[in-house]
Amino acid sequence: MLVNMTVNEFAEELASDSPAPGGGSVAAVSGTLGAGLVSMVCRLTIGKKKYEAVEELMTQTLSEVETHRQALGRLVDEDTDAFNQVMAGFKLPRDTDEQKAERGRAIQLAFKQAADVPFSVCRHCVAVLKLIDAIAGKANANALSDLGVAGEAAMTGLRGAAMNVRINLPAITDTDYTAEKNQQVRQLLDDAAMIKSRIDRIIEDGL
Amino acid sequence: MLVNMTVNEFAEELASDSPAPGGGSVAAVSGTLGAGLVSMVCRLTIGKKKYEAVEELMTQTLSEVETHRQALGRLVDEDTDAFNQVMAGFKLPRDTDEQKAERGRAIQLAFKQAADVPFSVCRHCVAVLKLIDAIAGKANANALSDLGVAGEAAMTGLRGAAMNVRINLPAITDTDYTAEKNQQVRQLLDDAAMIKSRIDRIIEDGL
Repeated sequence: MLVNMTVNEFAEELASDSPAPGGGSVAAVSGTLGAGLVSMVCRLTIGKKKYEAVEELMTQTLSEVETHRQALGRLVDEDTDAFNQVMAGFKLPRDTDEQKAERGRAIQLAFKQAADVPFSVCRHCVAVLKLIDAIAGKANANALSDLGVAGEAAMTGLRGAAMNVRINLPAITDTDYTAEKNQQVRQLLDDAAMIKSRIDRIIEDGL
Repeated sequence: MLVNMTVNEFAEELASDSPAPGGGSVAAVSGTLGAGLVSMVCRLTIGKKKYEAVEELMTQTLSEVETHRQALGRLVDEDTDAFNQVMAGFKLPRDTDEQKAERGRAIQLAFKQAADVPFSVCRHCVAVLKLIDAIAGKANANALSDLGVAGEAAMTGLRGAAMNVRINLPAITDTDYTAEKNQQVRQLLDDAAMIKSRIDRIIEDGL
């Protein structure tokens, strides 16, 4: 599993001439690291007398962001698996009409999975951005830049995963599916841009 | 070393209540993963008949981006080491005037290092963005989203590291140093914003 590689091995594997892992897995890694920083910031705030008033908010945020961190960690490998399934689909035999039909169905299914996985990454990253928005300006001020980096990393997770959804859509023949995904991704990007500019203002004011 | 932890362990360590590793190391990881994706995109372009005309550009880019990828990989640990040096400085004895002076010097030196390391991350990330700019629209079109994610990751590396430079400056008493670093970081962010918007246009057109 990719997440059981060291950071150095993962970067080496990325840099190789194999197309997987690629940008989809990097987007998920970015999301999981952003979520990890949010957890740290919550933990550096909880139990501090100065931040007593926000203790409940931090405890709640920590519990939620940990769910997203773990989900994003799983999606690192799921993205590469989904890509490999597409490649496997193309290698299926196509000698008979039956084989051709079966191959076509397998490829379509695999492409939908290859769009669904980064779409999940998008949703988790937007959830992380919302949690950052909820605690920005309230969490331990010593960890302000950590929260700022968390916002950048979650945004890279979202924008990177959105590219990976979109690049798979032209190959999918189910136009109801592609229209819906296109619209949903656009909505998530719009929502996130608003949230992110609020976060940026708070970080900028504090630096 | 952090880079010898698995991706999962690194995310767990981040999420802990220890302030290091924190955002500075995540910025460097983001930069090194972005650079890794650029290497992959170059390698997926080199040797392909369709991209013969850009073979030399890809080979040159690959060689340069690998230098930045490796430097950014080293900076992951250097950032956490620099942070720990600041903490160590604060723990030095301050019973005598001599100890107080020595402690003050150690802290100042450590804070400068804690700003210099993320400043290096900034510079390497801008260099990676310039390389992406040079190959965007020319590299293997099948890896378009990978190059797009590389741009996002390099930008997170830059912006995240810039926050880590800036958060350390108020503690530094050498005002020539802080004024220079402030100005240099602002310049890098401005340069990168222009480069990034060019990259975004090419990615958007291709998706």
